[in-house]
Amino acid sequence: MRQVAILGIGQTKVDEHWDKSLKELGGEACFAALQDAGMNKVDALFVGNMLSPLISGQNQLGTFFSDWIGLWGHEAVKVEAACGSGAAALRAGFMAVASGEVESALVVGVEKMTDKAGHDVTAALATAADADYEVEQGVSFVGINALVMRRYMHEYGWKHADFAPFSINAHANALHNPNARLHMKISLEQFEKSSMVATPINLLDASPIGDGAAAVIIVPAEKVTSVPGRPRIVLSGSGAATDTIAVHSRKDPLFLSAAHTSAKRAYDMASVTPQDIDLFELHDAFSIMSALSLEACGFAERGQGPRLGLDNEIRPEGRLPVCTRGGLKARGHPVGATGMYQVVEVVQQLRGECGQTQVDGAKIGMAQNIGGSGATVITHILKTG
Amino acid sequence: MRQVAILGIGQTKVDEHWDKSLKELGGEACFAALQDAGMNKVDALFVGNMLSPLISGQNQLGTFFSDWIGLWGHEAVKVEAACGSGAAALRAGFMAVASGEVESALVVGVEKMTDKAGHDVTAALATAADADYEVEQGVSFVGINALVMRRYMHEYGWKHADFAPFSINAHANALHNPNARLHMKISLEQFEKSSMVATPINLLDASPIGDGAAAVIIVPAEKVTSVPGRPRIVLSGSGAATDTIAVHSRKDPLFLSAAHTSAKRAYDMASVTPQDIDLFELHDAFSIMSALSLEACGFAERGQGPRLGLDNEIRPEGRLPVCTRGGLKARGHPVGATGMYQVVEVVQQLRGECGQTQVDGAKIGMAQNIGGSGATVITHILKTG
Repeated sequence: MRQVAILGIGQTKVDEHWDKSLKELGGEACFAALQDAGMNKVDALFVGNMLSPLISGQNQLGTFFSDWIGLWGHEAVKVEAACGSGAAALRAGFMAVASGEVESALVVGVEKMTDKAGHDVTAALATAADADYEVEQGVSFVGINALVMRRYMHEYGWKHADFAPFSINAHANALHNPNARLHMKISLEQFEKSSMVATPINLLDASPIGDGAAAVIIVPAEKVTSVPGRPRIVLSGSGAATDTIAVHSRKDPLFLSAAHTSAKRAYDMASVTPQDIDLFELHDAFSIMSALSLEACGFAERGQGPRLGLDNEIRPEGRLPVCTRGGLKARGHPVGATGMYQVVEVVQQLRGECGQTQVDGAKIGMAQNIGGSGATVITHILKTG
Repeated sequence: MRQVAILGIGQTKVDEHWDKSLKELGGEACFAALQDAGMNKVDALFVGNMLSPLISGQNQLGTFFSDWIGLWGHEAVKVEAACGSGAAALRAGFMAVASGEVESALVVGVEKMTDKAGHDVTAALATAADADYEVEQGVSFVGINALVMRRYMHEYGWKHADFAPFSINAHANALHNPNARLHMKISLEQFEKSSMVATPINLLDASPIGDGAAAVIIVPAEKVTSVPGRPRIVLSGSGAATDTIAVHSRKDPLFLSAAHTSAKRAYDMASVTPQDIDLFELHDAFSIMSALSLEACGFAERGQGPRLGLDNEIRPEGRLPVCTRGGLKARGHPVGATGMYQVVEVVQQLRGECGQTQVDGAKIGMAQNIGGSGATVITHILKTG
């Protein structure tokens, strides 16, 4: 396989974009990425999306966007892996370019969620769980995560406030990201007093949904000539893995084995270890997922995920900065787009474009996108050079 | 890229499988393909499906099936391109194996359509069209195809009965395919008198929906040792292309430009011309599509597609056998599975397993899968050797 580089990035603000159609929202990120790369066409388009059939009555998003942005004739397809759809689309594009089958690809993650009522969105999100064995029993996604968090707190003796640093850090970082959905600093007191959603998960443990799109242009690394003031960014690791769909089917519901395996595959391909990672855009859909991801990827011992937050190691100036642009918690979680936001944000860090939340000297960044409750996990590692 | 071979195939009958869940239906084809290949695990799973979020309330089908068939840990993803989802999944798997990223992949197309009422299915199928510019105006899929057929008849002077050979051939061939949905011979008289659906398309111009799943195992060709009595089957051409989503946006609505481009890409990769093709599993969702596909792929002059049927050249003993196992018209059209049925059927022909509809000495077969009204087209060419 040949090496693949990320040449351009684009994104919209995560928001309630009632004034923009699905087409316009995704198109905006695509055009921004093309412009950033200085290109006006690519060989192929890969779209990551989870909910458009249910929310917008639209399938065939590959050709839908290809048509809208004027890439007629080119190959285009949609990839879906629940909330992991964005990174799954990037991985499909990565293999297309790495194999030599295409010379350039546009990968966009897009999700329009706020055009339907909340209960419709909750039902649509539940299609990521097992319809027969989970949803039919009445559990929602937050319900499943609440069961996991409660068990984790019981097993390892953490109290709810111990998870606060994950949300406080995410909100503090989002203040400096104009594309983040939420721009409000939160305190430990606010975190503790926030409205309960599904015990022990309260509103400040959970990420907000939203409309958004984020895109990258990928090309063979050997074709990238240096742009003044910008490092070349190589997609040097890509790994995917799966677990059981239903959490209750797992031998150990407190270990994200697919996150572990997918990270290991990405580390191996990129020839790095967890110690080499300068920043980690993790999948903090709920604060419990931050703790479990850190453990699964080798950044914390089993049961010790919250420690990194309590010791201030996850802040931009810490040992392992996470959610440097706000994460799912504060940048927002437009589900099928989230994985592409994470990758775009890692690129911004490696380019040194992150202002007050810039990680000093960042050269190797990791993004991990999770579909379902740890069921499908895709990890990418980006390097300058 | 390294060459890719198809080592195993599996399929269910296309039918109303009310006794089988989505899991069981797809699983049956997966297990059959694994058994046929003599394998019990693969590195990756690619699922082609269009409607499960809308019909079965289930997303994340990659991991869903990976979990069900016991492939825990392995990579899995769903690919969607409307009725072209099956072949789009095969193309994603092809690039994964060809790139060297995985050593084996299971590709399954699966669709469960008959668990909902007919009007719900019609609405779900319409998500392949443009929600804003086509569906909102009230056209269904058969309506769009009827407009195209009427214009084609006007432009080239064909009458409705001239399309009969496509359906008569498909039904005659399906009689010998135990997995076909419809087992009934039809006559020209029946074709002409069939109930009208959307003028000029009547019931015998249109393919029936159904529940079904079809799967293949792909591996690097260099790893395939010969099995006694079975030729090695190489996936020697793979090409994808797109057109506008809406038919009214096309410069020429009577030419399937994406079918043309995708076939050309597959011919070039396989180093063959249309004259080399021994049989062609084309996408006869409606009889007009048979004519247009033959023209776009270089088997007939513009406006002369029906000629091949009228001259008996499309029968198993003809110059270019099509729909040798019944095609979409009589084997049935479980939308996201159809592309994989076509490929499985080409393999059966190249293995010489087709009994009364066997194409003598078949060595090169082509399958073309279409999403929307010619919007996304994926073509595969298979060769023995």
